[in-house]
Amino acid sequence: MHKPVTPLLTVDAIIEMADRPGRPIVLIERRNPPHGWALPGGFVDVGERLEAAALREASEETSLDIQLVALLGCYSDPQRDNRGHTVSAVYVATATGEARALDDARNLEFFDPERCPELAFDHALVIADYLRWRATGEGAPLRV
Amino acid sequence: MHKPVTPLLTVDAIIEMADRPGRPIVLIERRNPPHGWALPGGFVDVGERLEAAALREASEETSLDIQLVALLGCYSDPQRDNRGHTVSAVYVATATGEARALDDARNLEFFDPERCPELAFDHALVIADYLRWRATGEGAPLRV
Repeated sequence: MHKPVTPLLTVDAIIEMADRPGRPIVLIERRNPPHGWALPGGFVDVGERLEAAALREASEETSLDIQLVALLGCYSDPQRDNRGHTVSAVYVATATGEARALDDARNLEFFDPERCPELAFDHALVIADYLRWRATGEGAPLRV
Repeated sequence: MHKPVTPLLTVDAIIEMADRPGRPIVLIERRNPPHGWALPGGFVDVGERLEAAALREASEETSLDIQLVALLGCYSDPQRDNRGHTVSAVYVATATGEARALDDARNLEFFDPERCPELAFDHALVIADYLRWRATGEGAPLRV
């Protein structure tokens, strides 16, 4: 078979801190471009399930052992990452305990998801879909 | 940035024929390996949204103009395709009218999803998840 070329595949996690008042979510400040605040996440390895990649990336960047709750949706706008076309599967997850910024995260904070700072990539759209999911249980809308 | 290597990205569509008794789904018999019956689908192009890829692949293989209904889930078991690691976003869709086998499809038939033939890839698992989605509205379970 001629080897196809497809978009690069990433995962991101919206991590609700279940043991903190108001269940804030975890955002990281990125060490590498694009700089700014973002959801923890990264590239999926060949041979790794998406779910395993989400657990690994969360652990690598925040030190948290997360529990996956749901697939919020897939984000595939070709313009969502100006380095090239990446498609992200975004999971909602929960965690408890202490978090530390590691690896690609140079800083980490908890935020009320209704009061996030400016976010890299299309993560503001992801958070808007997450707030709708929290209110209605509906996954991210399809975007044709 | 060092260019990451990630699994190849595909889409598949479970197409319900809304104008036929019992709303059968469309399966194709594959022209290329792995042979056998499968859901219509294929590789996502760089620069193309997942949703657009699902519409394109359905049209190329079945001649149907489909309407996407929901993202059933993402399938990422590294063993699901013996040619290499592919991750598939699977959509539920509807269509009406006549269908024709085209492109990678050498044959096409409508099936009661509870009575499918043996299927390529992990499409039997996908169909099981689809039947559960139809009964409960729940997306594919996470598989860590």
